Amino acid sequence: MTKLIGNLVFGQSGGPTSVINSSAAGVFLEALDHPELIQNIYGMRHGIEGVLRDELYDIGREDRQELEYLTGTPSSILGTCRYKIASPEVDDTDLRRIHEVLAKRNIRYFFYNGGNDSMDTCMKVERYLKAQEYECRVIGIPKTIDNDLFGTDHCPGFGSSARYLATAISEVWQDAHSYSTPMAIVFECMGRHAGWLAGASALAGVIGHGPDLIYLPEVPFDFDQMHEDARQVLKKKNVVMISVSEGIMTADGTLVAEQLSSRATDSFGHKQLGGVAALLADELADELGVKVRGIEFSLLQRCAAHAASGRDIEEALLAGRSGVKAALDGVSGVMIGFKRAEGEPYRCEIIHVPLAETANKEKVVPRAWINEAGNYVTQDFIDYALPLIEGEPHQKHENGLPRFARLKKIRV
Amino acid sequence: MTKLIGNLVFGQSGGPTSVINSSAAGVFLEALDHPELIQNIYGMRHGIEGVLRDELYDIGREDRQELEYLTGTPSSILGTCRYKIASPEVDDTDLRRIHEVLAKRNIRYFFYNGGNDSMDTCMKVERYLKAQEYECRVIGIPKTIDNDLFGTDHCPGFGSSARYLATAISEVWQDAHSYSTPMAIVFECMGRHAGWLAGASALAGVIGHGPDLIYLPEVPFDFDQMHEDARQVLKKKNVVMISVSEGIMTADGTLVAEQLSSRATDSFGHKQLGGVAALLADELADELGVKVRGIEFSLLQRCAAHAASGRDIEEALLAGRSGVKAALDGVSGVMIGFKRAEGEPYRCEIIHVPLAETANKEKVVPRAWINEAGNYVTQDFIDYALPLIEGEPHQKHENGLPRFARLKKIRV
Repeated sequence: MTKLIGNLVFGQSGGPTSVINSSAAGVFLEALDHPELIQNIYGMRHGIEGVLRDELYDIGREDRQELEYLTGTPSSILGTCRYKIASPEVDDTDLRRIHEVLAKRNIRYFFYNGGNDSMDTCMKVERYLKAQEYECRVIGIPKTIDNDLFGTDHCPGFGSSARYLATAISEVWQDAHSYSTPMAIVFECMGRHAGWLAGASALAGVIGHGPDLIYLPEVPFDFDQMHEDARQVLKKKNVVMISVSEGIMTADGTLVAEQLSSRATDSFGHKQLGGVAALLADELADELGVKVRGIEFSLLQRCAAHAASGRDIEEALLAGRSGVKAALDGVSGVMIGFKRAEGEPYRCEIIHVPLAETANKEKVVPRAWINEAGNYVTQDFIDYALPLIEGEPHQKHENGLPRFARLKKIRV
Repeated sequence: MTKLIGNLVFGQSGGPTSVINSSAAGVFLEALDHPELIQNIYGMRHGIEGVLRDELYDIGREDRQELEYLTGTPSSILGTCRYKIASPEVDDTDLRRIHEVLAKRNIRYFFYNGGNDSMDTCMKVERYLKAQEYECRVIGIPKTIDNDLFGTDHCPGFGSSARYLATAISEVWQDAHSYSTPMAIVFECMGRHAGWLAGASALAGVIGHGPDLIYLPEVPFDFDQMHEDARQVLKKKNVVMISVSEGIMTADGTLVAEQLSSRATDSFGHKQLGGVAALLADELADELGVKVRGIEFSLLQRCAAHAASGRDIEEALLAGRSGVKAALDGVSGVMIGFKRAEGEPYRCEIIHVPLAETANKEKVVPRAWINEAGNYVTQDFIDYALPLIEGEPHQKHENGLPRFARLKKIRV
């Protein structure tokens, strides 16, 4: 393998997570260890838009200590985007521009951190540059709280959101069960098509403080069945706690949240969801005749770095570092993934997933990991998710407030 | 002062907090240190209702280690209630029953942990027992996230909620500012008449990641002014973050949340609020023409022990311990309070506030601590609140999940 000398660019894309900046730290810190091959390290301002506009930050001018604070700093420190690059057969304007900027900046290492859509961007960039015979190694770093990326055991970001949800729900359990009055609570977790996050709320059940019922988009939702399920629990326990995914839909494919669908559609064609908890809470209050609260975790679940999973942080860092090492070894056109070893204790090894195998696909919760009634997850789901929330968060505090990384963000 | 030998009872009342169980731990651990005077330690099942029904737990039979875990366990471990005792001149049934149960159980130390309404209960019990010449020392322990208790610098529970809100808002700031698209976010904090919690969201501003606008119930709310304020910020910053109290009202005294007022009224006559964030988000989306998210912190803000203030925990413990010491010294008919020393560094001493001076009153945010425009708090507010959120939470974790106290709750 020829040694490739040049500059590196890293970008963040799609919805933020608690640990996407840990992957950034992994890429930056590993790249800094190889000055003989990687001459300059650049960050894209707002993902691929930063390349299109030639708006790059010079990461080499940041303090190393601040880069280390990234592991306690949620969301996309460089800025994110949801920009979709056209397919080259339709319109190659964007790809020509990307090629131009990379060449101008002598960028030979291209890292993009995101979900399904971002892997699509990676794949297009990689193919286009190869066709143009511009040597550049392209690596995707996985990221999504939704945990729906294909080809990897799990995704950095998921474990931290799962830990946050399990923690918050177990604490609300304490609150709800301190009253003697009957009550219902509906929690709304993110997840349009994949119910991983709502499913993860079952982790609170490991300590006996979880939801009683969980509804995922993988199983058709039935209002009557939910009312009946809730009534049964309420009768027995006086309090019923229900977790749902934002994307639950009835058998005819209609979103439960559709009544709230006056919202905009983003540039990937996703409908903006939210409000299912409030809607179901109203429904249930009428049905059950008790006080019902709807709690939508909203953005909180994807940026709660103060409750992140230590393992998730370590793995996000590792994904970044492994990506750089792989690229230096000549690897290109892959996403970094995790493969779990059989049995206990939990162990994962890094794998390389060809971009074409993961881009634009979605991995949903297997039907076998949801109980027959479709109102909870199975022990297999819990055994899968529990190891992912272990370990303490890395966030540092000053005067009781988070000490986030302070980057200078000096433009190239 | 005669030594008083007998049993102690402790109860929790009103809305849960992250540290009410720390006060419980303080009372229990201190009481355990004085077996020569306090023979048995009882816990009320669901507050005063537990006395009325003679449903008490024998705390002496709990493991000491589990009592220590209480400092990381949110909400009311013994159960809470919102029961309002009738005034004896109207109906003394409840007070006669309380007297009967206390006498039957030889209870000579009565501790009640709660807010304004709970101090009213304390006061009635204390006066009634005195009139009946039943010797029993009655102490109120302050508790409320609302921070609206009279006669004390601040209330245990407030600091932890304030820290949680500041942390969560600063993390959401990171999320919102990672996009280049304009956006507005409305945060809804608890507080019917007092804006302490919404005000505390300004603490996130200390690290530059706070809301741009804060509206409290202490200042009449004006929709047009809010729209104009938001437009100005949006123009300058591209993102506007707004914190409001659930209880904000217009100049005519109408709650902004009133459109959602189909909800029940609790037994103290409080209207159940909520939904202001969603309502204002809808309003603003139309006004500003940008994406707006409403985030209601709901129960999360009062039970997030995983993000509690270490100082708040220590002070809640201290309030419990000091209460027991005071009672053993012959004090009765007071609430434990905090008096802050002038100047830096932060120091507070314990004071005894006569129950009549605090019961049924509400301490709101001074107008001078809100800016002239009525859309933010002043530096005085921040100087007041910042020391209250210092110190790390005490919550322990096992497998990434909270290790809550596990009490046996053996009935007397």
